[in-house]
Amino acid sequence: MSKRLGRTVAALHSPPSIVGSACIGGKKEGEGPLKESFDQIGTDSHFGEPSWEKAESRMQLITLQKALQKAGLTPDQLDCVFAGDLLNQCVGSSFALRDLGIPFFGLYGACSTMAEGLGLAAMLLDGGFAAHTAAITGSHFCSAERQYRMPLEYGGQRTPTAQWTATATGCAILAAEGNGPRITHVATGKIVDAGIKDANNMGAAMAPAAYDTLRAVFDETHLDPDDFDLIVTGDLARLGARIVRDLFLADGIDLGTRYTDCGELLYDPATQDVHMGGSGCGCSAAVLCGYLLNGMRAGKWQRIVFAGTGALLSPLSSQQGESIPAICHAVILENNDGKGGLTNA
Amino acid sequence: MSKRLGRTVAALHSPPSIVGSACIGGKKEGEGPLKESFDQIGTDSHFGEPSWEKAESRMQLITLQKALQKAGLTPDQLDCVFAGDLLNQCVGSSFALRDLGIPFFGLYGACSTMAEGLGLAAMLLDGGFAAHTAAITGSHFCSAERQYRMPLEYGGQRTPTAQWTATATGCAILAAEGNGPRITHVATGKIVDAGIKDANNMGAAMAPAAYDTLRAVFDETHLDPDDFDLIVTGDLARLGARIVRDLFLADGIDLGTRYTDCGELLYDPATQDVHMGGSGCGCSAAVLCGYLLNGMRAGKWQRIVFAGTGALLSPLSSQQGESIPAICHAVILENNDGKGGLTNA
Repeated sequence: MSKRLGRTVAALHSPPSIVGSACIGGKKEGEGPLKESFDQIGTDSHFGEPSWEKAESRMQLITLQKALQKAGLTPDQLDCVFAGDLLNQCVGSSFALRDLGIPFFGLYGACSTMAEGLGLAAMLLDGGFAAHTAAITGSHFCSAERQYRMPLEYGGQRTPTAQWTATATGCAILAAEGNGPRITHVATGKIVDAGIKDANNMGAAMAPAAYDTLRAVFDETHLDPDDFDLIVTGDLARLGARIVRDLFLADGIDLGTRYTDCGELLYDPATQDVHMGGSGCGCSAAVLCGYLLNGMRAGKWQRIVFAGTGALLSPLSSQQGESIPAICHAVILENNDGKGGLTNA
Repeated sequence: MSKRLGRTVAALHSPPSIVGSACIGGKKEGEGPLKESFDQIGTDSHFGEPSWEKAESRMQLITLQKALQKAGLTPDQLDCVFAGDLLNQCVGSSFALRDLGIPFFGLYGACSTMAEGLGLAAMLLDGGFAAHTAAITGSHFCSAERQYRMPLEYGGQRTPTAQWTATATGCAILAAEGNGPRITHVATGKIVDAGIKDANNMGAAMAPAAYDTLRAVFDETHLDPDDFDLIVTGDLARLGARIVRDLFLADGIDLGTRYTDCGELLYDPATQDVHMGGSGCGCSAAVLCGYLLNGMRAGKWQRIVFAGTGALLSPLSSQQGESIPAICHAVILENNDGKGGLTNA
């Protein structure tokens, strides 16, 4: 029997649980509003490694180990892991995981990677292909700057619409059986290209993709925005989030205070100079795997939709004059005792 | 009920069919032994586009369109598509697919991408999450050379163990119902790093991963190499394939003439100067989607194992002194009337 509700959303028959999660942040992230939610905060940008790229790998590995520990599992109990990152050829993930012997699916979803990984992991669990899986991703400000923009030493100026790539990682451990917030629905986004060409305005480029996927979530599940305690995108930051609000207002829907964005949550705009807010695979991953899942476990929220957004450009595609294709993948998370109940509760 | 046979292999309950496939090659590929298997052969390296990267995207798009046409389907009938490539941030795939409106999973598996995509697509179909999906990938000699090695204009010398990145694309359309070779088993590889640091010797770096996954396929399915009409890796080329043979010989198993490699099949070593043979995401994708699937449809082979290998390095990881992590994903393909029969036949 098909589990698809429509073009975008699949409803899981046996919603898997997130039985453990962990996140790590850099020094700057550890000085922000979510500092209490991190399992570890770096004292510098190196995490004991000789390069920023190796630091990024190290962070992913530590995060996986911490998440496994919280779930009471060992690496050999994971049937597979989904991971990816922003580094060329996703070496952050492959070097993080190379010694663990876990069957590995490499993803490229830019900053939507955590949502993409969660969705695929949940579907494989629901389909009977695994008992335990993990989704991991991360990003590093210094490695992203030198790969995408300028070497840090050049001291380049940032434009007002720029976002700050988070030095952060997040890992979620999913299980077919177990306690924890459950993934009840998976929304697989399509590529949306609104024609934006400014690579320093990712929020505007990604907002239409977030709108497209969230619109499909509401339409196909017949859940209203009011049925969610939290609607969270990542990582649109201030400008992108405002565009999402405006796009829904044009439909006569006010997302109100239940809508927020991981790029807005991670830093304090009054004291931390990050322009529009956070970005990078690690931003939404760390906000989800710390702040959001902790809040669900504490009963603060019973049902949320987590919508990860990614900009599928490269420096070379911009140099060749191309606009920025974007994507948004989403999952609906519910507590076992959620107010809306579970299809299989 | 779990569909996992062991650490690596899952057995599908309702094996999906490959109901259409197509492949495209560049001029050089169209002069090789498999020239008859291509749906289109480029007369130059540009495919009507102003850059090689855009040509790579164009090739993926054309290949998808041709495969859909053969399957009698339209883009809106695909529930999702799996794609990825070698270009930084996988822009070959995202730009190819941006106008089609198909829910999209971005992958990074280097040259294992076709096998990774086929495996995930088959599991989503078997799990009831889709009725039709596609797996697409490709590569382009010119874009790969300038990204990974040197601008072509420099005229750099190649070392004896080097492989030639294929200008080629392949696309397979999978359906839960329909006629065509079926995917009965999916093997998800783990990362294997044999310590090789020479980025011009990918075959040696990837061979241990191919051995690891094929070994698991034979052990977990209890099928012997003799039970397959063809055991095909891609893209190890001559040296890597010889290492796989030797690793099995050390186990007392002679893979014999039923073993071959896509990197060995694509070019003629006597007349085409490609050193060890072909490589690149497009090599195994095009060989599978043309030569191999055509052969299965013609009844030449009833059961094959297709094992895609990927080297998960980047130029930067090599510059930082790292060895080359590798992975191998595999699928078992059977005809409906295969001699071994199907679990659900």
